[in-house]
Amino acid sequence: MSLVVAKFGGSSVASIEKIKNIACRVRDMKMKGQQVVVVVSAMGDTTDDLIQLAGATGEFLNGREMDMLLATGEQQSAALLALTLNNLGCPAVSLTGWQAGIKSDSAHSKAKINGIENCRIKKEIEAGNIVVIAGFQGISPQGDITTLGRGGSDTTAVALAASLKADRCMIFTDVDGVYTADPRIVPEARKLNRISYDEMLELAVLGAVVMQPRAVEVALAHQIDVEVRCSFNHNPGTIITKEDKMEKEVMVTGVAHDVNCARFAIFDVPDQPGIAKTLFKALAKEGINVDMVIQAAMRDGRNDIAFTIGRDDLQKAVEAIGKLVEEIGASGMSYGDDVAKVSIVGAGMQTNPGVAADMFEALADEGINIHMISTSEIKVSCLIDKDCVETAVRALHRKFELDKI
Amino acid sequence: MSLVVAKFGGSSVASIEKIKNIACRVRDMKMKGQQVVVVVSAMGDTTDDLIQLAGATGEFLNGREMDMLLATGEQQSAALLALTLNNLGCPAVSLTGWQAGIKSDSAHSKAKINGIENCRIKKEIEAGNIVVIAGFQGISPQGDITTLGRGGSDTTAVALAASLKADRCMIFTDVDGVYTADPRIVPEARKLNRISYDEMLELAVLGAVVMQPRAVEVALAHQIDVEVRCSFNHNPGTIITKEDKMEKEVMVTGVAHDVNCARFAIFDVPDQPGIAKTLFKALAKEGINVDMVIQAAMRDGRNDIAFTIGRDDLQKAVEAIGKLVEEIGASGMSYGDDVAKVSIVGAGMQTNPGVAADMFEALADEGINIHMISTSEIKVSCLIDKDCVETAVRALHRKFELDKI
Repeated sequence: MSLVVAKFGGSSVASIEKIKNIACRVRDMKMKGQQVVVVVSAMGDTTDDLIQLAGATGEFLNGREMDMLLATGEQQSAALLALTLNNLGCPAVSLTGWQAGIKSDSAHSKAKINGIENCRIKKEIEAGNIVVIAGFQGISPQGDITTLGRGGSDTTAVALAASLKADRCMIFTDVDGVYTADPRIVPEARKLNRISYDEMLELAVLGAVVMQPRAVEVALAHQIDVEVRCSFNHNPGTIITKEDKMEKEVMVTGVAHDVNCARFAIFDVPDQPGIAKTLFKALAKEGINVDMVIQAAMRDGRNDIAFTIGRDDLQKAVEAIGKLVEEIGASGMSYGDDVAKVSIVGAGMQTNPGVAADMFEALADEGINIHMISTSEIKVSCLIDKDCVETAVRALHRKFELDKI
Repeated sequence: MSLVVAKFGGSSVASIEKIKNIACRVRDMKMKGQQVVVVVSAMGDTTDDLIQLAGATGEFLNGREMDMLLATGEQQSAALLALTLNNLGCPAVSLTGWQAGIKSDSAHSKAKINGIENCRIKKEIEAGNIVVIAGFQGISPQGDITTLGRGGSDTTAVALAASLKADRCMIFTDVDGVYTADPRIVPEARKLNRISYDEMLELAVLGAVVMQPRAVEVALAHQIDVEVRCSFNHNPGTIITKEDKMEKEVMVTGVAHDVNCARFAIFDVPDQPGIAKTLFKALAKEGINVDMVIQAAMRDGRNDIAFTIGRDDLQKAVEAIGKLVEEIGASGMSYGDDVAKVSIVGAGMQTNPGVAADMFEALADEGINIHMISTSEIKVSCLIDKDCVETAVRALHRKFELDKI
């Protein structure tokens, strides 16, 4: 009998009505003769509500206790789905992370799964039960409840599929799959039937999050095929898979954009060893992730250093760097959140040197100025003015003929 | 160092403000040099809200899954109290039932504690932590989460006090302790400093619930002194203890009343073996608890059988008995919820034969008619018209001079 792991996110279990919908879906899978393991997130805003409640207890939020609190959200939705399935006449059993044997490290709020002792799950499957597992959580070597961080339910599902050697892993979400660009901006954007792990990782990191990057990494490590599809209809989704399983090699698979970025520049930084270290250590200390970095050409022994960060981190960065400008002998700084990042992603880029040039041309043709560029083997990103982002995404989608593949 | 187990009920943790209040109380205990283990119920209406949510999934509520769902309420309040204590600078760790080693049988929704493997609790106490334990829950031999039934947090606290050989067990609630009668009805009602386990059991069963009867039974079995006191002030409470520790032996300790009862009578039941069995088996099958039972004097080989049940069970009883009246050859039935039960309780009654007569006299002096009587070694209960209940309670309180002890 084939075994399916199906994960349903918070919007798919946001109300009892929605839980009933997915219960019917799960029942149908079971009635087709499949064994089904379901992973659920917390209902709708439950996690946010709990975080708000915890925030009222004071400023210091102990990580162990926060995990103890937040893990209840998934436990509730798992129990409610199991109750619903039982009411539909499908024997179902819900399991918490620790009951499902999901062993993690003890890094509270961002724990990593170390392994899954799946004997209880297997026992329940063999007994004919649909097994509903609370996502996003595990148990530390100390016997404490941990959470895997936001979106960790995706990781739970993929890790379970690997551990159980499942035939399919399906991530149900509120979109139909992975698109060549955001359909709200590019109406002719096309759903991809398949995408490689690497491409999906780039897209996820670039802001087109339909699946958590860490879950994609786990899928890549275990070579698990994952299908992202919509929980509200029966359209086929996008299969994230090995590159050599792809239909055909295309240069550019998709266009991503991210408007949650901010630019930061420091002028006339002395060209001395250790200065960049001082700057970026100061940012790291504040927990600020730096994305693109440019060190402009030297002029009289002085550099301009520019970088991008998440928009939410801008104020923290201004405070951290503001203190250092004088200390390091720079002449000043400039910053703003008036920028956006557009990126093209495609495994085929590795062997097609002209792709970046085509991208710059497409932007130039629209009169769009490029502030910063960063590249990896399978992507090119450009920082542009925020008010040009939709024009840019449409131009790139057209340029690489993404509607025609 | 002395060890205190303190239990706070749902109304004491109903909001973050209230949780902060009890956190300060717990901190003060700790600062006096006591080791503190706290047991908490779920916040305010959480359990009722979860039951309502579950009810929307369908008619059949699987016991295992309900326990999985409901146990989250206490887990949340335990985590929130631990977060608050940490914010007050008191190291605190919350534990679920299974983490605290509370082993139960597998009777879901009404599990009994079989034992407590307290090594984790002891380890946390030794590390200097205040230990906050989710009440009302345990773990079955199968590794499933169980709940101990409504009010089970009291039982958790008393069982923990026994297991840890605590010096004190305090049940914090929203009343000051156990009173000689309901102060809302009898303004001169007096708080008892001490009450015996047996008396407390009778009072609890009779409807004056400040502590769950099962928790009193556990305290009796382990001979644990339990203090019931108010979480909103610092008044001393009532200590539930061994009879020989009582200040002095009084005939009547308190007056209890219960308006949640209903009467039921079946007329002209043939006086044949097995008829009563048929009737009461039918009620038991519906889960209806029968309280007082009277079989009236025989007349032509026929009896009248009357009994009382909980008011909420009346409709179910009417259906169950209605089907049987003809089958057993009775002439008809009568029922209603226009009755109430008043009771006097006191360990001293055992050696004072005139107490029941005094009770009947007090009621007669007020012109109150007695429908049914039931007695145990330490209590006398009378069923009377519901609209006489307040007059009756006041008359009995006066008759036995409960304001003067």
